[in-house]
Amino acid sequence: MPNQFVTSLQCLKCGKTYPADNKFTCQFCGDEGILDVQYDYDLIKSILKSQIANRSYEMWRYRELLPIEDSAKIPHLKIGWTPVYETEKLARYIGIRKLYIKDDGRNPTNSFKDRASAIGVLKAIEFGFDKIACASTGNAASSLAGLSAAVGLQSYIFVPERAPEPKVTQLLIFGANVFRVKGTYEQAFELSKKSCEKFGWYSRNSGTNPYLVEGKKTAGLEIAENFGNDLPDWVVVSVGDGCTIGGIGKGLQEMKKLGFIERIPKLLGVQAEGAKPVYDAYISGKDLIPSDTNTIADSIAVGTPRNWRRAIKQIRASNGTMITVSDEEILEAMRLTARLAAVFGEPAGVAGVAGLKKAIQNKIIKPDETVVVVITGNGLKDIQSAKVAAGKEYVISPDIDSVAKIIE
Amino acid sequence: MPNQFVTSLQCLKCGKTYPADNKFTCQFCGDEGILDVQYDYDLIKSILKSQIANRSYEMWRYRELLPIEDSAKIPHLKIGWTPVYETEKLARYIGIRKLYIKDDGRNPTNSFKDRASAIGVLKAIEFGFDKIACASTGNAASSLAGLSAAVGLQSYIFVPERAPEPKVTQLLIFGANVFRVKGTYEQAFELSKKSCEKFGWYSRNSGTNPYLVEGKKTAGLEIAENFGNDLPDWVVVSVGDGCTIGGIGKGLQEMKKLGFIERIPKLLGVQAEGAKPVYDAYISGKDLIPSDTNTIADSIAVGTPRNWRRAIKQIRASNGTMITVSDEEILEAMRLTARLAAVFGEPAGVAGVAGLKKAIQNKIIKPDETVVVVITGNGLKDIQSAKVAAGKEYVISPDIDSVAKIIE
Repeated sequence: MPNQFVTSLQCLKCGKTYPADNKFTCQFCGDEGILDVQYDYDLIKSILKSQIANRSYEMWRYRELLPIEDSAKIPHLKIGWTPVYETEKLARYIGIRKLYIKDDGRNPTNSFKDRASAIGVLKAIEFGFDKIACASTGNAASSLAGLSAAVGLQSYIFVPERAPEPKVTQLLIFGANVFRVKGTYEQAFELSKKSCEKFGWYSRNSGTNPYLVEGKKTAGLEIAENFGNDLPDWVVVSVGDGCTIGGIGKGLQEMKKLGFIERIPKLLGVQAEGAKPVYDAYISGKDLIPSDTNTIADSIAVGTPRNWRRAIKQIRASNGTMITVSDEEILEAMRLTARLAAVFGEPAGVAGVAGLKKAIQNKIIKPDETVVVVITGNGLKDIQSAKVAAGKEYVISPDIDSVAKIIE
Repeated sequence: MPNQFVTSLQCLKCGKTYPADNKFTCQFCGDEGILDVQYDYDLIKSILKSQIANRSYEMWRYRELLPIEDSAKIPHLKIGWTPVYETEKLARYIGIRKLYIKDDGRNPTNSFKDRASAIGVLKAIEFGFDKIACASTGNAASSLAGLSAAVGLQSYIFVPERAPEPKVTQLLIFGANVFRVKGTYEQAFELSKKSCEKFGWYSRNSGTNPYLVEGKKTAGLEIAENFGNDLPDWVVVSVGDGCTIGGIGKGLQEMKKLGFIERIPKLLGVQAEGAKPVYDAYISGKDLIPSDTNTIADSIAVGTPRNWRRAIKQIRASNGTMITVSDEEILEAMRLTARLAAVFGEPAGVAGVAGLKKAIQNKIIKPDETVVVVITGNGLKDIQSAKVAAGKEYVISPDIDSVAKIIE
């Protein structure tokens, strides 16, 4: 049975609506016309609030807010409801009253993107595909590979030349067909798009697939349900394509509509200095200009983001803002988050912590405010960057004098 | 307040009991005399069964069964109650009626060992230490580094020369002081032991620390509570030191004593062919003879296991048995578990799956039985081994013909 709660797809640029079927982007606005799933919130409200308490703690507890059929066979992997920690030591060091970390590196393939890929594989099956593809700098890909293995789809994944080896190995072990494309992320993206058209594969590219962001928004739904009316003042998220912060913003807005929360926390979007086209568009108020990318935070190194409108719209709707951080600040955030909050995040994963620190220094966020930072990926995924951040071990002979010499 | 449920420490070799304080090994049996925490199960029974339903799903829900003080400040990281998946595709491929995977790679530092380290850091604090040390092939170390960061202890970690780099980086990022010892695990172990004595550090070596296994047993407690009287016929666990399977066995036995389950599943202990001293002792019925080690499954490459008596005792008490697997079989299990169950485990983590497959072939486990395999660590921790198992990606130019050529 089709999902009775979904009403349409609506273009985020021109506002035109379409039936919610196998469609990508608006026919009038082209690639610029990202489509957004619309719901019957009155109907959802009457059901969700009374039933949610009985549901298991994973992303599917919000299934009326997800664009999947009643008959969809939910993957067995436990996705979402990632832990939220209050981190006193990190809060003290950074200089903020209350700081929470939401560790999305605890998802099945160790990143936030599992939320989106779970929706992607279910839509592929619903639309009758047995093959699915994407281009990704890493996490979208590994989550697609893992979720495809879970549901039995064949996956085809296009990665840019510089994708870190652990991420590629994670794809291969799940049985994905991996193409390492001699070029940039943008070239890998174009090739994946063309391949989907030519070979009849379903596209899991979160830039243009209208359904994936609905999975991403579950992090926003969770933050709202988890904190209720003790919502933090700010939610801090790193920004690459724009889809993650856009999704989290949408989730928060929905929970306000449904009466779970009374206000929307301010969104702080954090980009790397070496890949900041969304930030530039936010500051200028003009259309986005694609940029080169040069940052260790490969998961947010996106030169041609597709969801910048969605991101900026949600940031403005929340009265939030954007900030950029250097690679050095990101490496410092890796150390701080691991040493003071005991969470090991990848560079893009901890960029939010770096952004928070800078936002406090710049008086954008005040010391008496409260904040939740979403850590979007596990540090084991990019051990090369972690090595730069982490420092060195002592190499010693197996005798006690060697130890004594070092600790003295 | 001291823990009112703990009654004593008892030597697993001679049976002598001691007060449950800061003590390692039996004074009569020396290093051979591993001590085991004893509890007042009647008292625990009257409390635990009525209260457990209201507790959060993490290892601390069994706190009466854990050797920690009432006042212990529980680390903020969410440890335990790792997901249990029924994996139909893997079950079908391997040829067994029902197969469950318990994914302990979903713990905070991505391995089973977080359960033990959580107890270790709390005991260190209870006994007045501010420094803690261990020797480890990897997972015990990274979990100690992470948990020490969580509670604010300084950690000193001794790793053998061949410890994989991702594991060492994970230690350093958490702020641990790491000594890479030019030698074997056994040499690193001896040096860590001497250093604890000389410098006054608390020892988190699970071989001789009597409390750590109590953390490990929580996986057994969880299996019992999770399945209740639908318990699987077998629980399959990889074996290095012997402490993990010994702990899981103890947890299952306790849940039977407390009336949560009516019987104990059979334990299948799986060692790598290149490091099988526990298996040899099990088969011979004689005392363990230390061996060399040569296996890719570094987390179970233990030549001088300290808890072999505990392991064999629990395996025999469960009417279980042991088996060995080759590195090739372990690599195949990495692929199978990732591709058919969508769980990416490290070599030692999936050795249980390899052991299960072989046990079915050898008619030790019957096709109509049911099994849970504990995956003890995440595959991202040892990406080099995963690479060998995973195969290669296609490196292509950014044009559609290159794709077409490959898929045809």
